Amino acid sequence: MFKGTIEADFLRTTIDAISALVTECRLHYSENEIHTSAVDTANVAMINLRLARDAFLEFSASEGELGLDIAKLKSIFSILGKASNVTLHYPDGSNKLDLTFEGYKYSIALLDTSTLKKDPSTPNIELAGQVTLSGSEIYSTIKAASVVSDKIWFVIDPVEKQFYTIAEGDTDHIRREFNGDDIISCNYVEAKSLFSLDYLKDMGKVMSGNEVTISLGINHPARFSFSIANGKGYIDYLIAPRIEAGK
Amino acid sequence: MFKGTIEADFLRTTIDAISALVTECRLHYSENEIHTSAVDTANVAMINLRLARDAFLEFSASEGELGLDIAKLKSIFSILGKASNVTLHYPDGSNKLDLTFEGYKYSIALLDTSTLKKDPSTPNIELAGQVTLSGSEIYSTIKAASVVSDKIWFVIDPVEKQFYTIAEGDTDHIRREFNGDDIISCNYVEAKSLFSLDYLKDMGKVMSGNEVTISLGINHPARFSFSIANGKGYIDYLIAPRIEAGK
Amino acid sequence: MFKGTIEADFLRTTIDAISALVTECRLHYSENEIHTSAVDTANVAMINLRLARDAFLEFSASEGELGLDIAKLKSIFSILGKASNVTLHYPDGSNKLDLTFEGYKYSIALLDTSTLKKDPSTPNIELAGQVTLSGSEIYSTIKAASVVSDKIWFVIDPVEKQFYTIAEGDTDHIRREFNGDDIISCNYVEAKSLFSLDYLKDMGKVMSGNEVTISLGINHPARFSFSIANGKGYIDYLIAPRIEAGK
Repeated sequence: MFKGTIEADFLRTTIDAISALVTECRLHYSENEIHTSAVDTANVAMINLRLARDAFLEFSASEGELGLDIAKLKSIFSILGKASNVTLHYPDGSNKLDLTFEGYKYSIALLDTSTLKKDPSTPNIELAGQVTLSGSEIYSTIKAASVVSDKIWFVIDPVEKQFYTIAEGDTDHIRREFNGDDIISCNYVEAKSLFSLDYLKDMGKVMSGNEVTISLGINHPARFSFSIANGKGYIDYLIAPRIEAGK
Repeated sequence: MFKGTIEADFLRTTIDAISALVTECRLHYSENEIHTSAVDTANVAMINLRLARDAFLEFSASEGELGLDIAKLKSIFSILGKASNVTLHYPDGSNKLDLTFEGYKYSIALLDTSTLKKDPSTPNIELAGQVTLSGSEIYSTIKAASVVSDKIWFVIDPVEKQFYTIAEGDTDHIRREFNGDDIISCNYVEAKSLFSLDYLKDMGKVMSGNEVTISLGINHPARFSFSIANGKGYIDYLIAPRIEAGK
Repeated sequence: MFKGTIEADFLRTTIDAISALVTECRLHYSENEIHTSAVDTANVAMINLRLARDAFLEFSASEGELGLDIAKLKSIFSILGKASNVTLHYPDGSNKLDLTFEGYKYSIALLDTSTLKKDPSTPNIELAGQVTLSGSEIYSTIKAASVVSDKIWFVIDPVEKQFYTIAEGDTDHIRREFNGDDIISCNYVEAKSLFSLDYLKDMGKVMSGNEVTISLGINHPARFSFSIANGKGYIDYLIAPRIEAGK
């Protein structure tokens, strides 16, 4: 059994964050939180998302899991209108999730969890470089890069004390340097890795408006970590690097 | 002969209301009003529309009719710009309607009325259930319903003193209950009928911003009645029910 | 060598103005200005554009020319964001133009000028009729005309002291009269020529927000002249007439 009432905006962010990578997922609920872990079909990117019970205005849950059709859940966005809160209710043994708001009761069929991928195990990787930035700046940078290329370098240069990105097209390239004001904090440990913009574009949209910490290595995955729901929720995205003849 | 000057917004609403059902129509004019009756090509929905002479800033007309290409008239919307008033002029014997506004004179060819369908006769039906609502709420409900289905139930429940709608998809469904505040008035006479959303979507858009009375029966047509042009005009839409194994 | 810092809006207008006609062009730079002349591929329309050195916040240039891929330069619009100024830099001997703004450095490959069309020579034509109007009104008129036709008459009537346009479709037509308030000045010398709306639509967009002088003859080209960049830049568009059985 799971029942929770949440601000419509928090629900929207949560669904957007998951749908950046997958169209369906397992949602685990327990007395203290809901959480999900999922990887995209190509095994390139992973999301870990948690919402603590106090991200909800009301919350009661035993332990269990739901199979969510994320693509279908997004259809609620066009109905929400000016609704401020949404109540989600999954009675034990049901095969529906009920969403109630402003006179509406929207019943969505759940997926059979036995047909869904198992939860991925989070790889144990050391990423020594860390830089914290505005998510909106990261998103702008990702959009700009995709004008000339389909991939982007993230680089921490400890000598010049710089964090920058480079996107290289066949003939054109875009370099974005983050200066004092743009950087909230950085440990200036050497890091340099290349990533597909394809994945980053959808993730970047979710980061907008949040303070994001990027963890980087040398030709290693990157982790983008940030809180949502006024600090009562937490997302981290992990994305595998593309390995190419270096810079 | 027909000549009238009307607020651009009233003209826009009138054209939108007609174009929800048909692409061409007969417009009748007389000393006291203009009016049109039309049914869609599938004979599922009908519009009756009247604008009294005092919906116009200036008005003079003998008795007659025009064949209007509604689709073409809509093209004026992109030209109107900030024009506040439009003068329509049809001199006797002409085959053009002149629309004059803000330095523009737009002459539109009329259709030969002998090629247009005869005016439909309004069916004589008793619809005992009546509920009055905000047209914007009706439109929201119609849009929400079309997320899961292509048809919608309108139901008055005299026992529970409720008015609600239900849209049922293959696996999901949306129920919308109208509570005290949402209902301007209702006679709570039992009614329950199913309608195609396809027609209702375009009609609903026109209802937005108006107070609308819905007349309903049991597996009977529905009538949506509302005034336009600051109460100087009047529309009613009639839509045939879909008959299915009931609820 | 060319290096200049310019307001982002001035750069945007300049690129839009050129891209209304061509996808690539020669840009000449000298100590005192930059300028370009180009004709569209069908030889129907020509642009002459100049920006004086004081349209730039900073400017230094020897004499030379660049081959610009205008279509590609437009991609910068989606990156500019809230940037207020852009620095353009072309070092001698390079094959790139660098655009620097708000932490970004965008390097765009230049075209080989030997592969570009030679500069067109501006034809020597006497256009006796002259009328000065708001560019936004011209643009509205062009957009309205294209609802019914693909060409438009520009007419100065010295007898009625009128400037008007007519667009004629197969069955409908739109006439736009410019009255006292709409006309900034007019010499009321007889003129009447027909032009393709196809070209005028893109040009008209650039004219919006500027005061534009139209020079006209009888079945002659038209010239649209206006200043940009707060009067520090200048555009004139020349467009060939369409010759048809007259009015």
